[in-house]
Amino acid sequence: MAPEGAIKCKAAIAYAANEPLKIEEIYVGAPKAGEVRVKVVANALCHTDIYTLSGQDAEGKFPCILGHEAGAIVESVGEGVTSVKVGDHVIPCYTPQCNEDDCIFCQSPKTNLCPKIRSTQGQGVMPDGTSRFTTLDGKPIYHFMGCSTFSEYTVVAEISCAKIVEEAPLEVACLLGCGVSTGFGAVMRTCKVEEGSTVAVWGLGAVGLAAIQAAALNKASRIFAIDMNEGKFEHAKKLGATECLNPKDFDEPIEKVLVEKTKWGVDYTFDATGSVKVMRSALEAAHRGWGVSCVVGVAPAGAEISTRPFQLVTGRQWKGTAFGGWKSRTDVPMLVDKWQAGDLPIEHYITHKFKGIETTAEALDALHSGGCLRAVVEY
Amino acid sequence: MAPEGAIKCKAAIAYAANEPLKIEEIYVGAPKAGEVRVKVVANALCHTDIYTLSGQDAEGKFPCILGHEAGAIVESVGEGVTSVKVGDHVIPCYTPQCNEDDCIFCQSPKTNLCPKIRSTQGQGVMPDGTSRFTTLDGKPIYHFMGCSTFSEYTVVAEISCAKIVEEAPLEVACLLGCGVSTGFGAVMRTCKVEEGSTVAVWGLGAVGLAAIQAAALNKASRIFAIDMNEGKFEHAKKLGATECLNPKDFDEPIEKVLVEKTKWGVDYTFDATGSVKVMRSALEAAHRGWGVSCVVGVAPAGAEISTRPFQLVTGRQWKGTAFGGWKSRTDVPMLVDKWQAGDLPIEHYITHKFKGIETTAEALDALHSGGCLRAVVEY
Repeated sequence: MAPEGAIKCKAAIAYAANEPLKIEEIYVGAPKAGEVRVKVVANALCHTDIYTLSGQDAEGKFPCILGHEAGAIVESVGEGVTSVKVGDHVIPCYTPQCNEDDCIFCQSPKTNLCPKIRSTQGQGVMPDGTSRFTTLDGKPIYHFMGCSTFSEYTVVAEISCAKIVEEAPLEVACLLGCGVSTGFGAVMRTCKVEEGSTVAVWGLGAVGLAAIQAAALNKASRIFAIDMNEGKFEHAKKLGATECLNPKDFDEPIEKVLVEKTKWGVDYTFDATGSVKVMRSALEAAHRGWGVSCVVGVAPAGAEISTRPFQLVTGRQWKGTAFGGWKSRTDVPMLVDKWQAGDLPIEHYITHKFKGIETTAEALDALHSGGCLRAVVEY
Repeated sequence: MAPEGAIKCKAAIAYAANEPLKIEEIYVGAPKAGEVRVKVVANALCHTDIYTLSGQDAEGKFPCILGHEAGAIVESVGEGVTSVKVGDHVIPCYTPQCNEDDCIFCQSPKTNLCPKIRSTQGQGVMPDGTSRFTTLDGKPIYHFMGCSTFSEYTVVAEISCAKIVEEAPLEVACLLGCGVSTGFGAVMRTCKVEEGSTVAVWGLGAVGLAAIQAAALNKASRIFAIDMNEGKFEHAKKLGATECLNPKDFDEPIEKVLVEKTKWGVDYTFDATGSVKVMRSALEAAHRGWGVSCVVGVAPAGAEISTRPFQLVTGRQWKGTAFGGWKSRTDVPMLVDKWQAGDLPIEHYITHKFKGIETTAEALDALHSGGCLRAVVEY
């Protein structure tokens, strides 16, 4: 029997690590206080979905509904919800923004890491400790990253729901829910790359390319794009990379190559690979005296970064970014507006398109392939 | 035979690693173009002198004249020297400041790491590639850190010579040539600790205590002082530490203790021990979202720092400081002025006093003892 107020719809369920997603009908419960139920219009697939499905994510819980890069329309709202209403277009975000007076994180301009629902989100449940998803025979299914957008309907916390303008096509806007925003923000927000500075980006997937695009928009003077897959270089150049380097082409480590090319190192370096070895290269390629290296990629569980402390004492800084430092409900709408105004094109990240939730697994396979930046599934 | 224009005087010579210093007469040659010969009035001893004498410093060259924390008076100047004249009071600095238009480091507000004479300084010679020190039988002796102040007279580059007001007693002013300035600058310059923020400092020698003093001056709200030697706690409290912690008193690692005490970690953390293990603790004790951890201590050769990149992705920053980020010729005189104005007391760092260059080895032994902050030798 359906829970009261539940919607029956299709979802792609991850029953266990490394098993194919199963398309099944489920119940999506009514939104409780402070929650919003949304109809998912389009989903862009992200490597974090693959990462969790592979079982490497220590926080991953099964069975669950993955997906966290979507465009959606509000279907109904729970008690007390005021910031969105039925019919609003939204991007569900995995980083909330509670904006409460006593949230030192939301009140600080230095961070976007609102911890309000972090613990329940990490446990795969809604803030009240329960799930809104059940199988038709009544078994609960875990949520994922507070989004779970591989479902025709999902329920998210109001504080995770970024309201955007209706004019923005959701099948493109969904890109701003994770990777592309992260790459933009690493450069524009976390590091605030200045005009005339030099930039190096490792890893030319959507995140790395977005960092390159942002560096070009911020008028960096030299932008090094680094990848072992030279097939990525053309796109990087179109977005503003001034030099594309394949580490395999050099006898010396790539950080030495970069220091030689720039005399003292690169002003801002970004890892968008998740490899701790690359993170070290990026730090050591940073400019003596003031170079900043930013970790953007997600490393495998247990992996550690290391370097000689001399690298820091001589002026390099090591930092990181989560969701590009953007505050979700304030900044995602701003990014959508910039895109709509023509200042921040993002359509080019969509290399593969699919129709219907049944194609989600196919889209994940496409993302696995080297040639894919973002595969978008329209529901 | 004496080189032309040389002064014969006593110096403490380090003939080899781990051998006692030998007090001998040497020749100190006349200053060449861009150089200044100074009469050393007082020397404060620093752990870096001990470190190099112990043979751990890969750049250490023997025989050499150590010493780099001194107050001195200009005895003569070489060709083209304009910024100081005979009789000026100066502090020789190991970080130069060339101020040339094409020095991107001197022209940047972000760093003090002028590289102008870095390579010759590292080789133990003056910028022209030769030494001004010779034994009485004509053998050259290497310079050290561009200072070599364990000599009654020494020659330094003009760009390493910070001119200070004559009113400041040189036997105290010498402290600002290295450790104390480094601790002050880590807090005031490199990290710019804001009013109301929380601070933790590991290692309560002169450098760590100076960081605590600066944090109190900057009106930090809580200042944690951490050391395994509880004998240091009283001084730390006098300077403004609000809580003194001995890691041995806790079952949990000290970084966890600090995170528990502060809920989310400490805004600014400083390693003044040189231990890479402590550097990791300091980073991991830093505040989620915006904590900054600054490496101040000098690690043993080959030692590496490490952590999980998640620490950075969730908002912690890792940086370092050399000489506290102060630009030597601009900022050391400013620090002296602040001290003279009563805003930055430093006399309390002198725990041991000696007279005559012959006591240098004795003073080094005193510095080795746990109760010593700074031992000053008046020549």
